[in-house]
Amino acid sequence: MQPHVVIVGAGFGGLTAARRLAGAPVRISLIDRNNYHLFQPLLYQVATAGLEPEQIAKPVRAILRHQSNLTFRMTEVTGIDLSSQQVTSAEGPIAYDYLVLAVGAETDFLGLGGLEDDSLQLKGLTDGVTIRNHVLACFERAAADPQAERRAELLTFVIVGAGPTGVEMAGALAELVHLVLVKDYPELEGKEIRILLLEAQDQVLPGFDPALARSAQRTLEGKGVEVMTGARLANYLDKRALLADGRSILAETLIWSAGVQAEQLARDLAVEHGRQGRVIVEPTLQVPAHPNAYVIGDAAYQEADGQPLPMMAPVAMQMAERAADNIRRAVEGRPPQAFAYRDPGRLATIGRNAAVADFGRLRFRGFLAWVVWLVVHLIQLIGFRNRLLVLINWAWDYFFYDRAVRLITSDPLRGE
Amino acid sequence: MQPHVVIVGAGFGGLTAARRLAGAPVRISLIDRNNYHLFQPLLYQVATAGLEPEQIAKPVRAILRHQSNLTFRMTEVTGIDLSSQQVTSAEGPIAYDYLVLAVGAETDFLGLGGLEDDSLQLKGLTDGVTIRNHVLACFERAAADPQAERRAELLTFVIVGAGPTGVEMAGALAELVHLVLVKDYPELEGKEIRILLLEAQDQVLPGFDPALARSAQRTLEGKGVEVMTGARLANYLDKRALLADGRSILAETLIWSAGVQAEQLARDLAVEHGRQGRVIVEPTLQVPAHPNAYVIGDAAYQEADGQPLPMMAPVAMQMAERAADNIRRAVEGRPPQAFAYRDPGRLATIGRNAAVADFGRLRFRGFLAWVVWLVVHLIQLIGFRNRLLVLINWAWDYFFYDRAVRLITSDPLRGE
Repeated sequence: MQPHVVIVGAGFGGLTAARRLAGAPVRISLIDRNNYHLFQPLLYQVATAGLEPEQIAKPVRAILRHQSNLTFRMTEVTGIDLSSQQVTSAEGPIAYDYLVLAVGAETDFLGLGGLEDDSLQLKGLTDGVTIRNHVLACFERAAADPQAERRAELLTFVIVGAGPTGVEMAGALAELVHLVLVKDYPELEGKEIRILLLEAQDQVLPGFDPALARSAQRTLEGKGVEVMTGARLANYLDKRALLADGRSILAETLIWSAGVQAEQLARDLAVEHGRQGRVIVEPTLQVPAHPNAYVIGDAAYQEADGQPLPMMAPVAMQMAERAADNIRRAVEGRPPQAFAYRDPGRLATIGRNAAVADFGRLRFRGFLAWVVWLVVHLIQLIGFRNRLLVLINWAWDYFFYDRAVRLITSDPLRGE
Repeated sequence: MQPHVVIVGAGFGGLTAARRLAGAPVRISLIDRNNYHLFQPLLYQVATAGLEPEQIAKPVRAILRHQSNLTFRMTEVTGIDLSSQQVTSAEGPIAYDYLVLAVGAETDFLGLGGLEDDSLQLKGLTDGVTIRNHVLACFERAAADPQAERRAELLTFVIVGAGPTGVEMAGALAELVHLVLVKDYPELEGKEIRILLLEAQDQVLPGFDPALARSAQRTLEGKGVEVMTGARLANYLDKRALLADGRSILAETLIWSAGVQAEQLARDLAVEHGRQGRVIVEPTLQVPAHPNAYVIGDAAYQEADGQPLPMMAPVAMQMAERAADNIRRAVEGRPPQAFAYRDPGRLATIGRNAAVADFGRLRFRGFLAWVVWLVVHLIQLIGFRNRLLVLINWAWDYFFYDRAVRLITSDPLRGE
């Protein structure tokens, strides 16, 4: 019988590893708790009513239908036993000869009071829909509320963390509000609405070139976002966001995009961990002392130039290729090779015609960066149909200053 | 101050009434518990993974943005007091000078044991997504289950009620299963999967011409649907559907499309009701003894040629125009006019290239009827963008034998 490769997680890393092993003399079991692969970089557009959730996700079985050495299982993996070489799942134990742990990251609330219960996050597909429902319901409730103070609270949106996700979310939310919703709600005045972007560090987009970051901040401010750098959140209780310096903001909505950590499953592994609970792997991506187990992507800790590799799709996909190749080499009796990251650069979009691109020596912003962002994201999105529908939605919104998906699809009147 | 018209419900009836009163010397409040208008005739395609839910719904505020005499309120109307001329809502009482009650219909489980808790229905947008999640989760669970008996239960889908909704659901489900899912699940055998359509009357599509109904039944059977006419459901307990004649079917899934009744709000009105709890209205659509209150659509009972008018969009929309015109006449001091229904005929589709059209003297079926069905539904769908996206999805599925939206978006592993 051919060796059994178990891949946990069908994100960018797991999916790439599975595909890379097509045709290899192994049996692959790909396991995910969802039946779809999510294109997370566009999730903020679901949250801001620009895209339908189904357009940035694709069923795993549809993606890998033609790969004959692969079986997909939708189940929750509950534990990993490196010694006995098996994962435990809701459907019982699954033994492996080789393991690829590609479980990604989850939100880290950094132990801040009230956040886990009352803030919104942007990790899974349903999170995007939850934010959309919540934001639109705030507008409906404000439109019906005669009290100016309560209206102000309902119409204050705080985004914490100005990494690419926070910046993109703030820009898209500002455009949703000021280009679309103000026309939907003639009952409300534009100046009642506040969007705040809080960042603990001293620039937005930490890790980007400072000049690009300043430009991004100016663009955000031009769209009506109040940017506060050096602003650290202390807690969020009773709809009040308290900052470390004592200032406080009354807001019905707080979107937390300031902390991530490796998924529980990776943090629980009985091995050494680096920052954010990531598993410290060998240069070959193997788990120390367990050479047939690999950890890749957000769940793996490795440094380049003295810095931890970022939690980004390109890292996960490149690691997946290395891990898959190393498994193939092991099956063939050859030694594994070390991983080396090729940095493709960073992109972040702020809204219509506005983005920043940081490709190391090549840095640019504005319309050109925005076009590059569009093309890169369209190409990476899986499935021609998804690409076509997303392109139509983008063109529609661009030319008509619209956001078509502004539906409230859960029972919002019963409160969040 | 201009007279205040309160319209309850933003379905086909309420929306048409609101638009018909554009420019009239009245103030309109349109109230709905959702912030969107749902194009219900295509809901079964959401349930069978053919369309995204957002493509068959459009925000009410977007539809009516340019109508200056109208205010929209998203709230739940909890009661109606015809004597004091006010509706009560979660946000307090709302007084009216004229009322248009367009609340539509809801599922009637006919008092059958177990149905309300365990069956699925197809009325609201979330119902469609719930069925999609449920059906796909059944396949995932069956693929992981080694027990043949349990697999058979998971893969048996019973649809009760062979009106247009039941027939369309059965046909679309059969195509989803036999054209798409069998390729996704090589672990399962096609003959393990059963789709049953139960109808208490002696033909499918009751109300259609019997020859067309027989043709529809043959088409369904050709797609692998087991059609049982004269089969009345007695109850559904512990996943077992028991028929009145003693037969029973073990099925994880039962979709109930056999009973509807007027919405609670209409049934609770202290006036005389006809069949299915519908309010018996005057020929002018006014509530007897309350001439400034109108009931239209599914919630209203009126007969034509000795038969109650069907619960269909054309009835609701025609009634809405009559009610709106009568309110305008009342404001101008003129007497109301009687409603007369112009029957536009009936259409039902069974799947690829297959539909039946019953326009009275003109009856046809097959490819031509299917094209008519497509065109009629595309035209009636609100919003050019929705039409475009739906058309692309239809073309995609037609040419590639695909259903793109087969995502499980709720936590299905924790059971339904």
